[in-house]
Amino acid sequence: MKRLAILGSTGSIGRSALAVVDTHPDRLQVVGLAAGDNDALLAEQVARYHPAAVAMTSGAAVDRLRRQGVPLPATVGVGQDGLLAVASHPDADIVLFASSGTAGLDAVLAAIEAGKTIALANKEILVMAGGLVTEAARRKGVAILPVDSEHNAIHQCLHGRQAAEIKRLILTASGGPFRGQSVSQLAEVTAAAALEHPTWRMGRKITIDSATLMNKGLEVIEAHWLFGVPANRIDVVIHPQSIVHSMVELRDGSIIAQLGVTDMRLPIQYACSYPDRWDAPVPALDLARCARLEFHEPDLVSFPCLALAFRALRAEGSAPVVLNAANEIAVEAFLDGRIGFTAIARVIEQTMDEHATMPVATLGAVRAVDAWARARAAELSRNLEAVSKPT
Amino acid sequence: MKRLAILGSTGSIGRSALAVVDTHPDRLQVVGLAAGDNDALLAEQVARYHPAAVAMTSGAAVDRLRRQGVPLPATVGVGQDGLLAVASHPDADIVLFASSGTAGLDAVLAAIEAGKTIALANKEILVMAGGLVTEAARRKGVAILPVDSEHNAIHQCLHGRQAAEIKRLILTASGGPFRGQSVSQLAEVTAAAALEHPTWRMGRKITIDSATLMNKGLEVIEAHWLFGVPANRIDVVIHPQSIVHSMVELRDGSIIAQLGVTDMRLPIQYACSYPDRWDAPVPALDLARCARLEFHEPDLVSFPCLALAFRALRAEGSAPVVLNAANEIAVEAFLDGRIGFTAIARVIEQTMDEHATMPVATLGAVRAVDAWARARAAELSRNLEAVSKPT
Repeated sequence: MKRLAILGSTGSIGRSALAVVDTHPDRLQVVGLAAGDNDALLAEQVARYHPAAVAMTSGAAVDRLRRQGVPLPATVGVGQDGLLAVASHPDADIVLFASSGTAGLDAVLAAIEAGKTIALANKEILVMAGGLVTEAARRKGVAILPVDSEHNAIHQCLHGRQAAEIKRLILTASGGPFRGQSVSQLAEVTAAAALEHPTWRMGRKITIDSATLMNKGLEVIEAHWLFGVPANRIDVVIHPQSIVHSMVELRDGSIIAQLGVTDMRLPIQYACSYPDRWDAPVPALDLARCARLEFHEPDLVSFPCLALAFRALRAEGSAPVVLNAANEIAVEAFLDGRIGFTAIARVIEQTMDEHATMPVATLGAVRAVDAWARARAAELSRNLEAVSKPT
Repeated sequence: MKRLAILGSTGSIGRSALAVVDTHPDRLQVVGLAAGDNDALLAEQVARYHPAAVAMTSGAAVDRLRRQGVPLPATVGVGQDGLLAVASHPDADIVLFASSGTAGLDAVLAAIEAGKTIALANKEILVMAGGLVTEAARRKGVAILPVDSEHNAIHQCLHGRQAAEIKRLILTASGGPFRGQSVSQLAEVTAAAALEHPTWRMGRKITIDSATLMNKGLEVIEAHWLFGVPANRIDVVIHPQSIVHSMVELRDGSIIAQLGVTDMRLPIQYACSYPDRWDAPVPALDLARCARLEFHEPDLVSFPCLALAFRALRAEGSAPVVLNAANEIAVEAFLDGRIGFTAIARVIEQTMDEHATMPVATLGAVRAVDAWARARAAELSRNLEAVSKPT
């Protein structure tokens, strides 16, 4: 029996993780749940899974949770302290980081310090502080198992292969809903249109990141930290069918790929069962029904965010922190209808241009760069708002 | 430095193996070469690689080899004894079985007995005597590394995974030159047309086996012995591009695939370098230039040989011996223009129908069944000749 804590249990990854628990109740036990402000769903989850600890973002949310009338565990935390308590709870073997954004950074470090296996579905944590997090994990001998389907695929393809065998990581990308469109077409894209993603159902921020290909850019940076491979040996290939989840090219030119249905329960279960495998929670892929798999070079002119991510990774140090922070601000401005789709990349690029890359050896240094980039990107977004409104 | 003996050095696999030696002269040394009757090419190879032992099929061939005027090693063998001497030569670490047909069966057993690593590019040996050969290898702790691109791909996909993790092996098949044709169209196929294979350049017998899909059927049986997976967990999928060389479906529904350019030097090098990998002897696969990969169910009505192979594997015991022997005779009759393309399957099926499957625990039992099936298939071919001539 493995004991699981989930940070972000009411989100889409968190709910998929609980579906995996439902499939394997003899193998997985929920011992901790942390959520944002969805008290009604968290109350349901508490009633069903009886965790030893829960947490919510604010005191107000916890008050609402108490009024749901479900018996709560002894440990009910609030905010950052609540997250840390769930992430490092003594009963947990595996901690799943299922929420997006950088709020979970301290919690990841706390979970590593407590010797937990990390199941990581959050990109921003490694993009901001990949060096600190992977170094801490190495020091404690803790495994970081990727839940993102691409990195999970690479983890499966590598399967203990030596670093000397790896020539290149190849991340696949669906290309997003606007694949094939020109820059001028993209300038007209609205938030509503961008929120329709063809293959995966996800949160709003990650959906926009998928449409700009910044999602893939963040994954390139994440792949660097997870697998220790430099920027010039990570490639992205557009694969609209999303059947090949990613690939590894080995030293002799052989390519190992992982294929499967597009269902987040599979990589979540893989991380929970590792190093074993359990029976599938979903029907298997029928390749003869896929009929055709296509691969193209990404279009870096229409989708400059991907090129910006490679630029940030090559620059190393604080550059990925700036990229990530400016992207979060710009996407927020786009979702609010304040700037246009193509302005997202412009805000990020200008913020990066104004930043002199520096080493970031401490969490404090990361946070200072992050704060500067957010402030500057917000300012640049406001300037753009003044001159151009989206349709 | 690994020391290599090649049985079948003047054939297409043998020549590719020597090209791999040329790419890695610091890692591979040729210590033995056995050939059929191509004395001119063997003389060239001896002059270049200075093996410690050579062998040819007949005394006449060896006489011609001596007349080529190249200094020969002390050990120059003839026929079956010559093969055995090369296969078990004390200097050899790896023995590559690069010739097709069942002539190498005793030599494989001799090489295993001598503790050599076996690089196996020959299908018929495992189809005829897979139980005996794999049992001998297990007893001696000897590795059998498959060089066939499909089994080599599966070996790469498995990469030490436990049997309990494997749900299904998926062998890919190009579908041959006559994919999509009806039975009545296939009845008109000539040997000349069948010898034009779109992707791989191979010998005559294996080219016809590719056109009938018997090649894939033999590979299914071979996969059973190499990986210990029963017939009902081995599938074949048609993949005309021959980029995905084969796949493994794991217990949780995840599929691991191996992709690469279609060049036999890659699987040969893999077998020579295993468990290491060396730099590629050929340019890497450019997936974006492949553009599209397709997958279909095989057509067992037009290509009944594949179904016959599954039937033989399910029956076990002597049935695969009969399948293989009848196929060799029927293909020979087709290549001689004596029977039609669709008659190949008819000869095999009728030979199988007339045979009561029995266990084959000794080489003697295998040989007796093989001899009966060859005689019976020859008779059936002659009967067909009498009633129908191919166009």
